[in-house]
Formats: sequence, C-alpha cells, structure tokens
Amino acid sequence: MSKGVTKQRDDFSRWYTDVVQKAELADYGPVKGTMVIRPYGYAIWEAIQGGLDGLFKATGHVNAYFPMFIPESFLKKEADHVEGFAPEVAVVTHAGGKELEEPLVVRPTSETIIWHMYKKWISSYRDLPLLINQWANVVRWEMRTRLFLRTTEFLWQEGHTAHATPEEAEEETQRMLNVYKTFAEEWMAMPVITGRKSESEKFAGAVATYSIEAMMRDTRALQAGTSHNLGQNFAKAFDVTFQNQNNEPEFVYATSWGVSTRLIGGVIMTHGDDKGLILPPKVAPYQVVIIPIFRDSDQKKSVMAEVYKLTSGLRENGVRVKVDDDETSSPGFKFNEWEMRGVPVRIELGPKDVEKQQAVLVTRYNGEKSFLPLKGLAASMPDRLANVQQAIFDRALKFREDNTHHANSWEEFQSIISEKGGFIRAGWNGDAAVEEKIKEATKATVRNIPFDQPDDPGKCIFTGEPAKYEVIFAKSY
Amino acid sequence: MSKGVTKQRDDFSRWYTDVVQKAELADYGPVKGTMVIRPYGYAIWEAIQGGLDGLFKATGHVNAYFPMFIPESFLKKEADHVEGFAPEVAVVTHAGGKELEEPLVVRPTSETIIWHMYKKWISSYRDLPLLINQWANVVRWEMRTRLFLRTTEFLWQEGHTAHATPEEAEEETQRMLNVYKTFAEEWMAMPVITGRKSESEKFAGAVATYSIEAMMRDTRALQAGTSHNLGQNFAKAFDVTFQNQNNEPEFVYATSWGVSTRLIGGVIMTHGDDKGLILPPKVAPYQVVIIPIFRDSDQKKSVMAEVYKLTSGLRENGVRVKVDDDETSSPGFKFNEWEMRGVPVRIELGPKDVEKQQAVLVTRYNGEKSFLPLKGLAASMPDRLANVQQAIFDRALKFREDNTHHANSWEEFQSIISEKGGFIRAGWNGDAAVEEKIKEATKATVRNIPFDQPDDPGKCIFTGEPAKYEVIFAKSY
Repeated sequence: MSKGVTKQRDDFSRWYTDVVQKAELADYGPVKGTMVIRPYGYAIWEAIQGGLDGLFKATGHVNAYFPMFIPESFLKKEADHVEGFAPEVAVVTHAGGKELEEPLVVRPTSETIIWHMYKKWISSYRDLPLLINQWANVVRWEMRTRLFLRTTEFLWQEGHTAHATPEEAEEETQRMLNVYKTFAEEWMAMPVITGRKSESEKFAGAVATYSIEAMMRDTRALQAGTSHNLGQNFAKAFDVTFQNQNNEPEFVYATSWGVSTRLIGGVIMTHGDDKGLILPPKVAPYQVVIIPIFRDSDQKKSVMAEVYKLTSGLRENGVRVKVDDDETSSPGFKFNEWEMRGVPVRIELGPKDVEKQQAVLVTRYNGEKSFLPLKGLAASMPDRLANVQQAIFDRALKFREDNTHHANSWEEFQSIISEKGGFIRAGWNGDAAVEEKIKEATKATVRNIPFDQPDDPGKCIFTGEPAKYEVIFAKSY
Repeated sequence: MSKGVTKQRDDFSRWYTDVVQKAELADYGPVKGTMVIRPYGYAIWEAIQGGLDGLFKATGHVNAYFPMFIPESFLKKEADHVEGFAPEVAVVTHAGGKELEEPLVVRPTSETIIWHMYKKWISSYRDLPLLINQWANVVRWEMRTRLFLRTTEFLWQEGHTAHATPEEAEEETQRMLNVYKTFAEEWMAMPVITGRKSESEKFAGAVATYSIEAMMRDTRALQAGTSHNLGQNFAKAFDVTFQNQNNEPEFVYATSWGVSTRLIGGVIMTHGDDKGLILPPKVAPYQVVIIPIFRDSDQKKSVMAEVYKLTSGLRENGVRVKVDDDETSSPGFKFNEWEMRGVPVRIELGPKDVEKQQAVLVTRYNGEKSFLPLKGLAASMPDRLANVQQAIFDRALKFREDNTHHANSWEEFQSIISEKGGFIRAGWNGDAAVEEKIKEATKATVRNIPFDQPDDPGKCIFTGEPAKYEVIFAKSY
C-alpha cells in the first residue's frame, strides 16, 4: 500500500500527512477536523498511556472520570477561562428528542466540572492534597486542523489537583512538568526545554503555565505538554474552601496539567525520515519485525522453525515482536512497509541464514545492516533496543543544538528566522507588546522562558533595553 | 464517613445507592443522569479494562479510536438502527460560535461511523477479518437513570468486526460472548447464563443478539453484556463490499459487542451485603488492607517494621496491598471503612501479634477471623485470594440456583413472580405478542433463550401450546 512519501525537504507538511496516512496511524473522520486513530497509531497511544500512567501513579495520583457535558453556566464562572474557551466549544442544545433547558458544553477541558465536584469532596485540610487524573476525550472547535497536532476532538489526560498551600501547588505544578520531561526524553527520545510560558500564552485561568517545548525536524517548535499553577482562581469561582490547621476557612490551591495525542505528532516529526516513521523502542507497538524468506515448502519449514524459536526467545526477553509471514507480498515490499511504519529493528531470516545459524539485522534509524549469530540474539535484544533508544535521543538533541542560535541584534534575529529557522535564544524585556510586534514581523513567538537562565540575560532583542529573561523564540505548531 | 447502609431486605435499591456513595465509587454529576466515577470506582473499572483488554488481544483484536460526533444523516442509513437510537441521542447544533450546517449526534454506539470508515479500508477478502475494539464514552439520553446501571453518559468498550462469510461472523459473535462469560465468571465471580435475546429485545440493526444474564442479590436479572451478529445490514447501509476469492463483489458480514461500566453495578449487586461492598480479588483495587494497631511510639516502631516487611512480601507475591496508617482514625473505624469498600482480606497487626509473630486475618465475604504466623503469610496470600475468588463465585452460583424456579402452569408462574421472584425457566411459543402479554401481567420479560436447552421444552407457559424454547423469565434492571 505504501509507495513512499514526499521528501521532507520538498514539503515537510505533506511529508507529515503522507507518513500519518501511509503508516496507517490515522485517517480523516467524516466531520471536518475530526480524526480516526487507526490501530497502529492507537497502539502507540497505548504505549504512551501505559508509560505516563505509571509515572502518575508513582507520584501518588489516582484516576477518575467526570462527565463530558458541562452546564454552559459553569464555563462563565471564571472570567479568563470563559474568554479563552467559549469561542471554541461545541454545544449540545437537544437531547432525548427535546430542547434542553440549559445548553451543555462538550468539555474543552474539565476544570469547571471538576471544581464543582471538589466543592462536595473537600472540607478540611485532611482531604488535601487531592491528586486526580483523568484520561478522556475533549473537544475544541479549531479552524485549521492537522492529524494528531490539532483536531476538533482529541484524546488526552488532564491532572487536577487540590492543595492546602500555594507552595505545595507550585511544587506539584513543577513536579508534573518534570514528569512530562522525563517521559518525553526517556520514552519518546524527544529532547525538550522546560520553562514558563509568557503571560500572553498562559492557560486561560492560570496564575502561571509551564511547558515542555521540542524541536521538530523542520526546526519548528512543538509545545508538547503544559502544567498550570491555577492559584485560587477556580476555588474562588466554585467557592471551594477548606478548614486549615488553624481551623480557619481558606480557598483551596489548584493545579492542572495535560498532554494529548499531539505527542504522537511529536514522535513522528522528531525522528521520521524520507522512508517514513522512526519509532523509539519504548513506544513502538512492535520493537522487532521478523521477515522470513523462502521459496518452497522445504525452505519454509526450516526457516519458520527458526523464526518461531527466535520469536519465543524474544518474547521471553520482553521484546514486542511481529512476524510478517504474509505469503502474498514479497520480502522487498515488506522491508519498505515496516520501514514506513518505523519498527526499530528488522530481522531477515532465509534458508542460507538457517544453514549458517545467523540472521540479518537492520536498524531502522540508521539503516545499518549486520549479520549476527542466532545464538544469543534474543538475549541481546533488550540492550540493542536500549542503544537505539539512546542513539535517536542523542541524534535529536544534536539536531536541536545545531539548529539553536543566539541573536545579538534585531537584524541578526530577522535573518536567522528567515534564512535558517530553528530556535533563537535572545533577550526579551518581558513586555507583551514587544512579544506581539516580534510575532507580527517574523511569525516567531516566545516558546517559553527556560528555567535554565544565563547569569546575564543581555539586552532585549527588539528594544535594546536590558532584558528581563533570555527566552526561546521560534515558529511553532 | 461511612455510617452503615440501608439493609438489603429493607430497601435493596436504597442499599445499592448507599453502597455506591459510601464506598466512594461514584457520585451524581451536575447534569441530570450523569455520573462521576470516583477514584475507588474507577480503579475497579481499570481492573476490568485490564482483564478484558487482555482477553480481546489474546483473541486477535486491536484497539482504535473513532470520533464521537456522527453526522445526523449517518444514523438514518440503517432503518432499524435509527428507530432504536434516534429517540435517545444528544445533538450538537452549534460549535465554534456558529450553527452547524448538519447537526452532529453524540455517539450512542459507533456502528455507523465505523462502517463509514470500513468502506475506505476494505476492498478485498485479504483485508478481512478486521477485528477492532474501541474503549470510549457513549451517550444515551435515558429518563430513569441509576449510578453505573443506566446513566446518560457511560464508559464502555465496543468491538466492531468485519468478515468474509456469515459463518465467520456468527463464530466471532459467539466467541466474544464466551469471552464475556469467562470474564464475568472468572474475574468478577459473577455466574451468567448465555443465550439469544428474543426478537423484541435484540439490538437495533442486528440479525441476532446474544447476552450474558446474571442474577443480582434481589433476584432480579442484569443484562451484563451483549454480542450482536449484524449480518450484512450495516455493510448494505454503508455500501461496504469486498472482492471475494472468486473475484466477485460481496457485502461484508459484521459483528459488534459491548460491555460497560454497568459491570461495576453487577459486581456490587452480585456479592454485596449489609456491611457494604464485597469485591472479587481479581477486580479489587486493593486485595489486602493492613491495619497497624499501636498506642505509643515504641509500639508504632515495632509494629510498623513488621507491617513494612509484610507489605513488601505481599507485593513481591503480586498482591495489591494498602496500608491504612492514618493516625487520625481508630482501628474500629477503619475495619468498618474497609468492609464498606469490600477489600477481600484484612490483616490486623498489633504489638502482641509482633511478639507472637502472628497476624489476625479477616476474610470479608464471610467475616471469618484467623490467627496466622507471619512467617509464610505473604507467600500464601495468592492461594488464599484464589480461594476467596472461588468461594464467592460458588456462593453466587448457589444463590442463583436457589432462586431459579421451573413453572408448569400460568398460575404457578404468576405466583412465583409475585411471591418469590428470581428466574423462572419455562416454555415459550416464540410469539412476541405472548412475550408482551406476560410482561404486562407480571413485569417479567424473556431475559434470553439459553443455549443450554432441554430435549423437550414442554408447553408454552402462557398459551399451553407446544413451546419453541425453554427461556429465562425474570424482572430485570
């Protein structure tokens, strides 16, 4: 089915869409802006869910589920929140054959309904902290959509926590940002920069928003996850107080944090090449694909016997393995097919290999081919996969470093953006009007204010005034 | 928080609601008929998901995700389907600040949108079978709702498969019904009767619907899962054909099957008693709860040292264990609390136990208390839990048998229904009008036509004519 994809350098955007469709990750749904996540794409999401869910639970969180329909009036209770989300909600006006008394909004995010419930559940400091996460679908009516990156309905997780002090809320906000960084870098092999979003880019209703920002292979930035310190804003909007240890009522402190199926877009655009997808072993549905090669039933018999032995050896070593024994397509077709689908390691096994008790092993990310003895191959695979995982992370990190520039003047800034792209580290005076002017002139925005700041942030790249921070500027998804 | 529940014999329905709320399984959402699944309830759902998902994958199925918004026109393409679901859908008419050109239905089930996509993906017999499952939320605008049993939004899984022959479709329909039976009986310890639904109770759009039916502790029936043979109905409605092996176009054969968060209601009502929930070990968030008992810091030190040792021993043996070391509530309060929450085994450990190197073990389902040496306790726990699992299944099976009656005359049928309740096995001539009359007279319906049929089904309980089948009549949820 796959006949190659557009080259990245010819049209990165088309390359992306080609890969998503030819690797059968996703397809367009019948309603504009909706997406069908196909089994191979969904298996990546399951691996992501499994990894993240484990990290959430290890940090003391539990899962729950809240209704997707929110009374329209709830959204209006927090002033910034309604301004941010009202323009993009989908609204249910009829149900059960009747017009509803109050229209229901399909959740664009669940702060309002969750804080409505927290009012019932929280009364004392002993009820805190409350550390809840939800895996769910949400809807945001976007005009310009792209598979995985921005769809009207998407899958995500949203953590919503309640705390007794502002310090604990801030600590939680940063803890979860670090969980996202760990997951992005160690599971997805996608290096990220952690930092605070500018005021104009923060979440509607937050006191502070932090993000992880990754560089895609076209050198544009992808905001891959956000963590918000909501202060007492939602507690005040929903009147959620607790008796503190001095027996005084106090508004509860909140955080929320989320990542979505957008992460799959991040994996594709961090590692992929002109042959298609390149998956990090930790989130790959299949880590190894075995292609048996034979011409007649005698050969088939001896080759398949080795294949089954190898397969069960790999499974015993905890490796996710697929045997492609479909006899209606050729080995060459299969090589392309599984390269398109980004399987980290391919093993080819034919009659001569059986004779020599060896196999051909091809590593997807660099195309390296080696002949290896069958003996010990299965046992060595976890280490090989760990090496692949590290190698593609290192490659992505080097790519980001090679495409990160420092600008010392506004002229230099403009020429970097128009000629090279990538991330620019430059000083900013912290003024939203300046941020807006830079965006208008170059389409680059402040991605975040990295935690990792130099001793002297230098001068504001636009005004020449002393800078408040060094920030990351980039064009983004 | 828990101050006991209404007694089952006093008011079973209130007992149920009390348990759901006091065990903190679920709460009412702000919109009528909606439900919040609280962390403890959701943890049961996660255990159910894990078990079922494993069984689905072991039978060759993969997961995917389809959009929740379905163009209203899709629903109308299958005549029976629209008749069945149109009255209970929720409809999005506005989104992104504008009225939509075509209203969107929030999925009540996904046959229509999935078969719209299958048309794009299926062209040859080589694309078949297609074995896809989806974990999702669905919406059915019900008037009379009850937590877990019937809520306007609920969580479920829906399998949707496509086949080349009617035989394969029928085989799949029955295979998945048997997966449900296995899961219900072996994980949930809930005995079920498999059989075919009557024509009037089958799924809107199906050729045949099969169900698993369980008996709750008030002797009413709960339909706990259904599996549908859809024939070519949806393939015809969405024009999905494939080239068969003779190179002729043919409509594809379909199945669908689903279970939902209703299963949690089934667990509660199959095993619970007047002290609250009784959870089968396999779906219990915590299989063992340890209550340390001490009066001063010296005692605390020695007791907690043993508790940690025991806890890590249990975890090494794959047991899910909770230590309740909250010092603000008494052991007695904790005993009630964890009995309410249905934890299968409680271990009490105090200073005297440490001295004697023993622990007190209390089994939730029968209240049996034993003193056991600490040595070997952790290693013996998996067997103890397996015994509990078997014992509560046996008890539920005996309860069902004790409350299953044979009726030989219409008078007897009526008196059983009004005086004893339970399941009645009786002959039926297969006529929908007779089924309706029995329902009007007694509120009992044909739950299903069990696969397990006697050689001679006897006479129709209502008309006295030769019966077509022996069926299960019961009042149901």
